[in-house]
Amino acid sequence: MTETAKELEAKQRYEKRMARKKAHIDEKIAQANLEKGVLLITTGNGKGKSSSGFGMVARALGHNMKVGVVQFIKGSFSTGEEAFFRRFPDEVEYHVMGDGFTWETQNRQQDIQTAEQAWQVARQMLQDERFNYILLDELNIVLKHQYLPLDKVIKDLQSRPEMQHVVVTGRGAKDELIDIADTVTEMKDVKHAFRSGIKAQKGIEL
Amino acid sequence: MTETAKELEAKQRYEKRMARKKAHIDEKIAQANLEKGVLLITTGNGKGKSSSGFGMVARALGHNMKVGVVQFIKGSFSTGEEAFFRRFPDEVEYHVMGDGFTWETQNRQQDIQTAEQAWQVARQMLQDERFNYILLDELNIVLKHQYLPLDKVIKDLQSRPEMQHVVVTGRGAKDELIDIADTVTEMKDVKHAFRSGIKAQKGIEL
Repeated sequence: MTETAKELEAKQRYEKRMARKKAHIDEKIAQANLEKGVLLITTGNGKGKSSSGFGMVARALGHNMKVGVVQFIKGSFSTGEEAFFRRFPDEVEYHVMGDGFTWETQNRQQDIQTAEQAWQVARQMLQDERFNYILLDELNIVLKHQYLPLDKVIKDLQSRPEMQHVVVTGRGAKDELIDIADTVTEMKDVKHAFRSGIKAQKGIEL
Repeated sequence: MTETAKELEAKQRYEKRMARKKAHIDEKIAQANLEKGVLLITTGNGKGKSSSGFGMVARALGHNMKVGVVQFIKGSFSTGEEAFFRRFPDEVEYHVMGDGFTWETQNRQQDIQTAEQAWQVARQMLQDERFNYILLDELNIVLKHQYLPLDKVIKDLQSRPEMQHVVVTGRGAKDELIDIADTVTEMKDVKHAFRSGIKAQKGIEL
């Protein structure tokens, strides 16, 4: 067999393999035909949980959706995502609740009160079908510390409008929440710049 | 001991524990004092790799940074993130290269050519210190398929301006790339709506 014939054969094999792959994927896509508001959770100790939620805010805005954001933990710094998305007050309703949790305030009673106030805000969005996408940033942490009753949170999430998407972020997601979610990603910390002495960087962490 | 005394003791214990935690975290934060452009990789088979990269685009824009985006894979659909970030042509230089890879085109030679063209665009950004943040979306896939020479890509990444942040997304990140990265997250697919027959949803996947 000549070089050219060999090459041609390899090319044809490659094309056949890729055609099978495409057919398989096309079939899987055709089977997934339900339209539904999804509950998505990002958890784990790796970087990317909140930023992924904010990336989906951008995606939703690109489809002219109405977005609600409730940040359950506010650090002592101002963040890029807040500064940016507050530019669109008609499209994004943005709430940052409380002045930080746990190691910042060191007052459990106060943290519980803040969490309850934040949930009131979230709950109103979850009952309002004008909101197409709601980001509940760091809600997992609040639930992990038992600042909010889990069963109430689950009930409110499940009673939301059918086409409403909700993303919940934060490490230590509760099993009961994972059970009722449609999509769950665990973000595993393989490596973090912080451990090499690199400060939290604007545009990346802040 | 009375109930009130017990409660007071519990409260003091809690405050002490949280104070220790805060001191520990504050110390770690104080130790991380390097300012540096970071190379961040999101990989794994879970949802959130690209959306996390786009969330950091929003964060960077909130700090008035200049952003470059090169999407190495374009599907046959238009996406919310593209529609949204194209609203800011002065702040975001947005490139979508090629008409899809691998199972869409089924032509390896064409995919390599597209990848090379995309890398030319990326490379120019990596040599231009006006860009504070560059997102190389799905570059990992391109490297996995060996559409681009890995050593060249690594060299270009390492020669970039000192304060420039770069985020590389896509499953199957190469070990050599992980080695030179500052922060790496592996996104683990715990659950995906797709497997329950739910279609890719606007604002979430698209």
